[in-house]
Amino acid sequence: MCPMTDDLTARLRVPAGPVDLTAIETDAAPGFDGKKADGKKALAAMGAELSDLQERLWAERTAGSERRVLLVLQGMDTSGKGGVLRHTIGLVDPQGVRITSFKAPTEEERAHDFLWRIEKGLPSAGYIGVFDRSHYEDVLIARVRGFADPAEIDRRYGAINDFEARLAAEGFSIIKCMLHISADEQKARLAERLDNPEKHWKYNPGDLDERALWPAYREAYEIALERTSTDVAPWHVIPSDKKWFRNLAVGHLLLQTLRGLDLRWPEADFDVEVERQRLAEEPPVQ
Amino acid sequence: MCPMTDDLTARLRVPAGPVDLTAIETDAAPGFDGKKADGKKALAAMGAELSDLQERLWAERTAGSERRVLLVLQGMDTSGKGGVLRHTIGLVDPQGVRITSFKAPTEEERAHDFLWRIEKGLPSAGYIGVFDRSHYEDVLIARVRGFADPAEIDRRYGAINDFEARLAAEGFSIIKCMLHISADEQKARLAERLDNPEKHWKYNPGDLDERALWPAYREAYEIALERTSTDVAPWHVIPSDKKWFRNLAVGHLLLQTLRGLDLRWPEADFDVEVERQRLAEEPPVQ
Repeated sequence: MCPMTDDLTARLRVPAGPVDLTAIETDAAPGFDGKKADGKKALAAMGAELSDLQERLWAERTAGSERRVLLVLQGMDTSGKGGVLRHTIGLVDPQGVRITSFKAPTEEERAHDFLWRIEKGLPSAGYIGVFDRSHYEDVLIARVRGFADPAEIDRRYGAINDFEARLAAEGFSIIKCMLHISADEQKARLAERLDNPEKHWKYNPGDLDERALWPAYREAYEIALERTSTDVAPWHVIPSDKKWFRNLAVGHLLLQTLRGLDLRWPEADFDVEVERQRLAEEPPVQ
Repeated sequence: MCPMTDDLTARLRVPAGPVDLTAIETDAAPGFDGKKADGKKALAAMGAELSDLQERLWAERTAGSERRVLLVLQGMDTSGKGGVLRHTIGLVDPQGVRITSFKAPTEEERAHDFLWRIEKGLPSAGYIGVFDRSHYEDVLIARVRGFADPAEIDRRYGAINDFEARLAAEGFSIIKCMLHISADEQKARLAERLDNPEKHWKYNPGDLDERALWPAYREAYEIALERTSTDVAPWHVIPSDKKWFRNLAVGHLLLQTLRGLDLRWPEADFDVEVERQRLAEEPPVQ
């Protein structure tokens, strides 16, 4: 049910070494041979298998499994983190999903290490957890805006790798996606928010101040991608000017990850025949 | 887009006075003139409006609104709380939904008043919160199994009414649904879980012990429905032998509740023209 080429995961993955985001197209649809309507159909077609695999992951937890998925979504304003949540994660039973959105840290959060609030937002066993922004803000906006000194920022890349390696060892499958849009596409999306009164609430004058720092953010992303893309928690750059491709590509990564877990329905931990007998022989219940 | 008769909400609502659940059909489809396939189509057709209203509720919160929805789902094992979450709540953007499942209380939870853990599970402003089981367990299983003495159980009905009245005053719209199935339907669903190895994980031998107490649970429900159905937090009994009707009826109640809030897109709290100008005149961003 997945029309994407199997090597798409590899193509989206950030290769080792320095990262140059300007060399990665934002409006491409790699690995997919179709148009927007085909892409939307292909995403919808993933729904049944995603749901089935998610339920197996959930069922496993009742048999003591510690496995779970963590999808990290990062990207500039308007890059479509919300759209992925709505359209891709929306395909899955909401009972098995835990979404955590990270805003500017509170005073209490700032009084702790940057990973303190992240730990609290982690999904339990059996869940697909999604981070809408994440601990990466602490090496992105924190770097660009100078919220921490350079030595502390530098320390954080290693701390993140250690943290994610620990999660992987505990049973997390980690998928990290950077939703990659062009500055022109962001401009068009901000203009659309201003033009449509139903979208005014999504606009914040501060968005333009952040936008003015686009090159600094790009550099911060490039450094973060290079220093924190690891075997157990690789980064993927998702061309995101085409919303339908963005949603489809993240769906593909999620599906491939779940397939890779080889999820089985747990065996009964009771005697099925005995229970059938009990049910058959019970006194009348009214 | 809602083919249900407008008075369905009133028909499902528990009338004042003593409740006799044996007099309420479990396999009916009141207020809907159609078969299973029509019912499924009607539910899907609610999706767009539910999503739109949920986004408005969410947007309102950015303008300081305290409004939110709390949907309480109660019912015997297999009555379909999970099915409602998957099929009805699954229609809505998962970003705006907070599901809290209440299992047997932990030691820490038991050391507090029964409403302590409920408070912690309440949805923030802008959310549709769903309780999969709830504080009502503390007057249902607690009554049937004698987990608290009669005076304490008696105190709880009033405490619940006070609690829900406070929530309503704070901006909660409360919808309480008892998913009503027959004992025969439960037997068939338990048998199905035993017959299908993919459903063994959903079965627990303790389910039959609970089932043997069916009349005591019915009585506990009848008392709870009578004593806690209030104007600000009314109970609805949802005929649930037909899964499609159950999902549709809860969708209808949710839709009617959201419609009743008269949700408007928030006005911009900035000067739209100034922002348009800023965006148009910005220096090139690469």
